[in-house]
Amino acid sequence: MATTEKAPGNAPDKASPRDRLLDAAAELFYRDGVSIGVEALCKAAGVSKRSMYQLFTSKDEVLAASLDRRSAAYAEQLLPGPQDDGTPRERVLGLFERLEKASTEPGYQGCPFLAALVELKDLGHPASVVAQQAKQHLQDWLRAQAEAGGAREPELLARQLMLVFDGASARSGARIESLAGLTTVTVTSLMDAAGVA
Amino acid sequence: MATTEKAPGNAPDKASPRDRLLDAAAELFYRDGVSIGVEALCKAAGVSKRSMYQLFTSKDEVLAASLDRRSAAYAEQLLPGPQDDGTPRERVLGLFERLEKASTEPGYQGCPFLAALVELKDLGHPASVVAQQAKQHLQDWLRAQAEAGGAREPELLARQLMLVFDGASARSGARIESLAGLTTVTVTSLMDAAGVA
Repeated sequence: MATTEKAPGNAPDKASPRDRLLDAAAELFYRDGVSIGVEALCKAAGVSKRSMYQLFTSKDEVLAASLDRRSAAYAEQLLPGPQDDGTPRERVLGLFERLEKASTEPGYQGCPFLAALVELKDLGHPASVVAQQAKQHLQDWLRAQAEAGGAREPELLARQLMLVFDGASARSGARIESLAGLTTVTVTSLMDAAGVA
Repeated sequence: MATTEKAPGNAPDKASPRDRLLDAAAELFYRDGVSIGVEALCKAAGVSKRSMYQLFTSKDEVLAASLDRRSAAYAEQLLPGPQDDGTPRERVLGLFERLEKASTEPGYQGCPFLAALVELKDLGHPASVVAQQAKQHLQDWLRAQAEAGGAREPELLARQLMLVFDGASARSGARIESLAGLTTVTVTSLMDAAGVA
């Protein structure tokens, strides 16, 4: 767009009100939890409440949209790229290595999708629906690796690896565990037991 | 006390205001999350805000006290009783069998201590301190079993079992996983790999 509109009193900001709301929501909900209020959200985004309600029907919808937008970047951070030519076993270990690395970052507070599910306690909430899809996407990826790697029971192994992933992300996110060398050792034992080559 | 005081308009209630506050807090915080307000808490407890603030300095302190009171019952629900004469391996499996069973109860929403840690996102919060102690208590118990069972690295095995425990409680509490036969199989593989007899 050729507009040169500026937010009054601020530096030029090319992000749309929608994008600013979703950015602020992603940051605040992750840092402070899903209970943060509309006032704080709009203030952080530099968007009026009136504008927010023109764009979204509710705070719940903002939260859902912010998680949805985050899911692609999240998968990109954790899953191997298209150029990866490792074995299924190496690809699974790589995922947990990247989780261990991510968990050492200063702002890390665990998997944002698991946190949303734990906090919302309501599978019918629009943000829970998005979060559940993101978790299922990861589980499907793990199942595909388990199958390609020759696991005796690929579905069982994928569910086991999800227990480890979510236990690890919750515990390290809460700062009661440090993952270095922990998840990869655990995952190795589980893949060995499942017969993954 | 020999008082016969009744809550006006209610049946006689022998529980003290403190007990009623802690009971209501345990129920509401578990069901709805740590962000529920003082108004809702006092209303559910049938206690005035004035009375609450005479008993506790803040809502945070009520939450901490309610988790603290819950921790003994929680350990009793999950850990074997003093009469248990199983092997360390059987005792660990028994813990996870009890977790699988607890997770099928209608109101189950995961480990209350992990949920508090995930929601509060602040290890310095008085309720986080209590929650962390409860988690450490379980980890210490697992470490003792791992050691008694001859695990090569008892501390590592205890940390692995905590990943499984917390992943399982978070996922089943959020209703995105059903644990039957899942955690015991997982724990068996990890104990085998650790050399537990």
